[in-house]
Amino acid sequence: MRLTVADFEAEARAVLDPVHYDFFAGAAGDESTRQANETAFDRLRLLPRILRGNDKRDLGVSLFGRALSMPVAIAPTAFHRLAHPDGELATTRAAAEASTLMIVAMAATTTLEQIAEEARKYATDGDPALWFQLYLQPDLAFTESLIRRAEGAGYQALVVTVDSPVFGRRERDHRNGFRDLPPGLRCENLVGDELGPGGSGSGVRDIVMDATMTWERIDWLRAITRLPILLKGALHPEDARLAVRHGVDGLLVSNHGGRQLDGVAATIEALPAVVAAVAGRIPVLLDGGVRRGTDVVRALALGAVAVAVGRPVLWGLAVGGAAGVGEVLELFRDDVDRALALCGAAGPRDVDAGLLGPAPAGPLSR
Amino acid sequence: MRLTVADFEAEARAVLDPVHYDFFAGAAGDESTRQANETAFDRLRLLPRILRGNDKRDLGVSLFGRALSMPVAIAPTAFHRLAHPDGELATTRAAAEASTLMIVAMAATTTLEQIAEEARKYATDGDPALWFQLYLQPDLAFTESLIRRAEGAGYQALVVTVDSPVFGRRERDHRNGFRDLPPGLRCENLVGDELGPGGSGSGVRDIVMDATMTWERIDWLRAITRLPILLKGALHPEDARLAVRHGVDGLLVSNHGGRQLDGVAATIEALPAVVAAVAGRIPVLLDGGVRRGTDVVRALALGAVAVAVGRPVLWGLAVGGAAGVGEVLELFRDDVDRALALCGAAGPRDVDAGLLGPAPAGPLSR
Amino acid sequence: MRLTVADFEAEARAVLDPVHYDFFAGAAGDESTRQANETAFDRLRLLPRILRGNDKRDLGVSLFGRALSMPVAIAPTAFHRLAHPDGELATTRAAAEASTLMIVAMAATTTLEQIAEEARKYATDGDPALWFQLYLQPDLAFTESLIRRAEGAGYQALVVTVDSPVFGRRERDHRNGFRDLPPGLRCENLVGDELGPGGSGSGVRDIVMDATMTWERIDWLRAITRLPILLKGALHPEDARLAVRHGVDGLLVSNHGGRQLDGVAATIEALPAVVAAVAGRIPVLLDGGVRRGTDVVRALALGAVAVAVGRPVLWGLAVGGAAGVGEVLELFRDDVDRALALCGAAGPRDVDAGLLGPAPAGPLSR
Amino acid sequence: MRLTVADFEAEARAVLDPVHYDFFAGAAGDESTRQANETAFDRLRLLPRILRGNDKRDLGVSLFGRALSMPVAIAPTAFHRLAHPDGELATTRAAAEASTLMIVAMAATTTLEQIAEEARKYATDGDPALWFQLYLQPDLAFTESLIRRAEGAGYQALVVTVDSPVFGRRERDHRNGFRDLPPGLRCENLVGDELGPGGSGSGVRDIVMDATMTWERIDWLRAITRLPILLKGALHPEDARLAVRHGVDGLLVSNHGGRQLDGVAATIEALPAVVAAVAGRIPVLLDGGVRRGTDVVRALALGAVAVAVGRPVLWGLAVGGAAGVGEVLELFRDDVDRALALCGAAGPRDVDAGLLGPAPAGPLSR
Repeated sequence: MRLTVADFEAEARAVLDPVHYDFFAGAAGDESTRQANETAFDRLRLLPRILRGNDKRDLGVSLFGRALSMPVAIAPTAFHRLAHPDGELATTRAAAEASTLMIVAMAATTTLEQIAEEARKYATDGDPALWFQLYLQPDLAFTESLIRRAEGAGYQALVVTVDSPVFGRRERDHRNGFRDLPPGLRCENLVGDELGPGGSGSGVRDIVMDATMTWERIDWLRAITRLPILLKGALHPEDARLAVRHGVDGLLVSNHGGRQLDGVAATIEALPAVVAAVAGRIPVLLDGGVRRGTDVVRALALGAVAVAVGRPVLWGLAVGGAAGVGEVLELFRDDVDRALALCGAAGPRDVDAGLLGPAPAGPLSR
Repeated sequence: MRLTVADFEAEARAVLDPVHYDFFAGAAGDESTRQANETAFDRLRLLPRILRGNDKRDLGVSLFGRALSMPVAIAPTAFHRLAHPDGELATTRAAAEASTLMIVAMAATTTLEQIAEEARKYATDGDPALWFQLYLQPDLAFTESLIRRAEGAGYQALVVTVDSPVFGRRERDHRNGFRDLPPGLRCENLVGDELGPGGSGSGVRDIVMDATMTWERIDWLRAITRLPILLKGALHPEDARLAVRHGVDGLLVSNHGGRQLDGVAATIEALPAVVAAVAGRIPVLLDGGVRRGTDVVRALALGAVAVAVGRPVLWGLAVGGAAGVGEVLELFRDDVDRALALCGAAGPRDVDAGLLGPAPAGPLSR
Repeated sequence: MRLTVADFEAEARAVLDPVHYDFFAGAAGDESTRQANETAFDRLRLLPRILRGNDKRDLGVSLFGRALSMPVAIAPTAFHRLAHPDGELATTRAAAEASTLMIVAMAATTTLEQIAEEARKYATDGDPALWFQLYLQPDLAFTESLIRRAEGAGYQALVVTVDSPVFGRRERDHRNGFRDLPPGLRCENLVGDELGPGGSGSGVRDIVMDATMTWERIDWLRAITRLPILLKGALHPEDARLAVRHGVDGLLVSNHGGRQLDGVAATIEALPAVVAAVAGRIPVLLDGGVRRGTDVVRALALGAVAVAVGRPVLWGLAVGGAAGVGEVLELFRDDVDRALALCGAAGPRDVDAGLLGPAPAGPLSR
Repeated sequence: MRLTVADFEAEARAVLDPVHYDFFAGAAGDESTRQANETAFDRLRLLPRILRGNDKRDLGVSLFGRALSMPVAIAPTAFHRLAHPDGELATTRAAAEASTLMIVAMAATTTLEQIAEEARKYATDGDPALWFQLYLQPDLAFTESLIRRAEGAGYQALVVTVDSPVFGRRERDHRNGFRDLPPGLRCENLVGDELGPGGSGSGVRDIVMDATMTWERIDWLRAITRLPILLKGALHPEDARLAVRHGVDGLLVSNHGGRQLDGVAATIEALPAVVAAVAGRIPVLLDGGVRRGTDVVRALALGAVAVAVGRPVLWGLAVGGAAGVGEVLELFRDDVDRALALCGAAGPRDVDAGLLGPAPAGPLSR
């Protein structure tokens, strides 16, 4: 029975190639950060309000002037066709049907144009919320071409991953010998004739993790596009301040699901200092370990405008394609709605730190 | 051997239909709040006093001018006939014989009038302590009729559950497919001819979880009855203050046994701020996780006037009807008495925060 | 191999009747206090000193003008003949040979006179350190007669247990049906012709847990004897202050090995406030959970003059009579000596709170 | 697959005599300090910096004017030939090839001269970083002769172990009956004709743990050698201050891998106060529980200049001789490099306490 994200994960695990399951589920090192992302939520105990009369909740949030039906977006994750033959087309359809945001990954196994087209097909108003996640590539011409493609395809914001100067070391993948996509799958956004340095013989460009990147690259990006720019992976309050100074439009507090550096703070632990640092000047989102409606409420209570979910979407995708992703999104919607109702909130705007009670003195097992 | 509440639970589990056991034992979501209710007590370590000469303890407490023989009442729980054929009649008899308070649930499988009559039959002085718990229904005429019935039947206070604008999601029940009472059982207080909207075809009105409810409904209630009004489920100190302002007579700090919203603070963790907020103007009770006499002492030490126990009573009911409930109540009485004696206290009034030692730095397993 | 107290316990468990093992090992309620007594030590991390040149340690401490060879005494425990046929005679011989203190229990299965005689036989200087533990009985004439016997037999202090206004509830004993000593064993100090009220038909007086007792009884005791008086079981700093005011000569911080009230603070957690309250005016000892030389050092660091060990001695007794107890005592001596040496201390006097490092942020499993 | 130190340990365990494995893996008492050394790192959560442009990391650190290729040295450990026939020659070769520091143990099973000669053979520049660890022996003439040998052989610093006035009690060794090196192995640095008191009949001098040692011995050492002197095992900030005052040149914060006194603070917990005490006047290193590149970063963040690893090197040695040690060192290099990169640091100098986030409220399992 699919009552919880854990149910979806169990089903997905049963249908996926174990090596691919490990790719999605695994993380760097001892995976302590992956685990902490989830358990850190549990330590924040809620103190609901009563008699607020909010029988009609509105889960909607607004991001850069665009309305989402709920504060739960789809986080960018790679290789959706590894989870299900329909891949990103299924995911984007589910997001569009749910009227929520999909952040499309540069490492999609479908082109960003096809994804956007599919989203438009299923969006209730034909205008789906779509952001494009990318690693800024040292080949600036290529990077710019990608951005122009995203702009052209109707993406409404760019999410620049900044926590990956080098690849994280995911031991499950090493143990499994998982390196390449199986035949027939490739990073479709990176296929091209004119391959710069680093391109493989297969006609597909490799994604370069560029450790030379500095804030100047953000300035360059700022200069060449009018799309809102978000940074994904800024966890340090000092970097949050720098982001504001460099004209960044939003932050996605993320530790890459624990997949880059094990030992990093859980995102919900890092959130408060980031929120304090930006002081309301730009919106802050969060991903990492969000599994329950109450996790969403906790993130909102600590100042996030919305959250994004990655692995849960992949489990839904694996078990049921677009319908499966849709089920997961409706599970979250239902769970957030119930959590808001039971906290006495009419919607995300009613949620603040007053809903959080005293931290327990000791540990709580989940 | 029935030495502890856990013994009663084990026996009850053996005799109950597993689906019904899960209904009683289960809670919302991951059940972390249900678990925290119990473990949070353990983190409060006692520092007994010595040589107080209290060989004669008086466990009695007074609530709204009425004496209870001990600070342990029966919390309102639904469907007692699901636990035992004698249902609420057994529970109320045990409470009356023990000279303690029974809070009768609106969702009883026996009418409130029959329950009160049975209680009068067994109360040592013919005047049993009885409160009536209800969900204020949007059909105010019906709600008022219920209140008049409770007044007429001799109930001495109304306990309004305010933590349930919507139903909590109890996953065990979903997995078990438990939805309806078995044939022959129904919410007897809700049977009637003139069924308003929401009534089912069976002639039994459904209980409406009313998310439109605000403090105005409390004001309405305040205006139509002279019975003391308590709110069950106020956990936030701000709501405690509002309750005082709206003429509420008492608070039952409760998280519905973890059955409404998982992730909510343990009641013993929420208690101190509520007690501080009401500042002695109205009495504060607590339910949730009370399993030992020392738990009762801890709640008293943090400012509760009395506690209520729910699941333990159901286990007693399941294993032995009225006699089983009586055993559970006497177990608590004996355990509270011993705990008071060993703390050097002559009774509940001797218990204050001075009995609590330093919190341990780390966790204590139970 | 008998390297640790745990080794002795395992061997003892193998040779003892399981019911008797449970009587010695068990404690009240959930036994969380029994467990906390041990684990609370682990949370105190040591910061040794170096280059102190203390190749010759002197473990000796002085209590009321009498030298002990080490700061580890034998705590009073009942029924030694239940552990080994030689009973208290074996225990006292081992203590005398080790030149340390034995606190003889009122509930000994050997008379206090025989114990003292045996101790004198084996004490290196013929003058063994012996204290007598008692529950002050409501029959004052009998209590005084006991005290006169202890004085006459050469006991040098009285240890009055004050944490037992009523019996604790030890669930293992209830489950095992353990109530009476087996035939042939009895509380030999309580045998007499003129049995007051409460005496059983067997010619043996029952020990009365007297909840009427107040500080006046301590004043009475103070008036009738010149022996130093210690209170066993004072945990609250306010009671420590009262003890000083009532002329008490020392405190044994104890929670009765967790056997009276479960949920009470670990003794090492309660110690600092007691030490602060008496402010050096009277010596403070501790029992409860001491299993390693480093536990002794931690107690000394927090202000105890010495510690007492109960269960470890019983395990030694069970496995080897006097020789077994001797082994346990020498194990402690060796372990304390090594711990002192490795902390850079020449003896107990060198140990203070400076040896304790920062508390770890989270838990440490043992 | 050898991805982690744990992998090497598992392989080593499979090839080593279990008794020898226990000798290397075990520690004193309950081994809680050994365990805490590792788990205490996990509680320090990282907050990486972004967009620092550090594509070229330089892991090098300088110690007493000598460059190491990375901040990970080989801690002194005894009996390398017990782990592998090539013994210390293999270890030193790997260290030399990795251009990092080896701290040679006095209890080596190869002479310090042979070790130094082997190191020179494999050092890229013929000038390997070598320090000599010793226990100052009460036979000062012998101690001085050892120091002259170390000076003559080109060792660049002396590491004086000061946490061992007596031997720690390692229960695994006692249970295994492990006392002597097997035939053919001996402490080669201690072989000599003129054996002073304490020499065994075998022509090999025993290492004396000298509890008489005071700071005067350090002064003596200071007077007879111009080599930098480090103390290994100073954990208390007061001793750190004394070390500076006595002309000590550096500290290696160590608890002997938990092998001396169980219950001692984890080294990463003790580090901050030691760093604060020396206030930058002398460099501070750390060993104990370092298993991951992120552990190295955490130690640097709290003020260590470099760390040393002991057991991981022994596991590498056991599984593959010099090549195995080399693999372990390169594993650390790679892991530190990745951790630095992902923290946005160009090298050890970029690492400070700003990289550490808020401590989690509760425990994190590894």
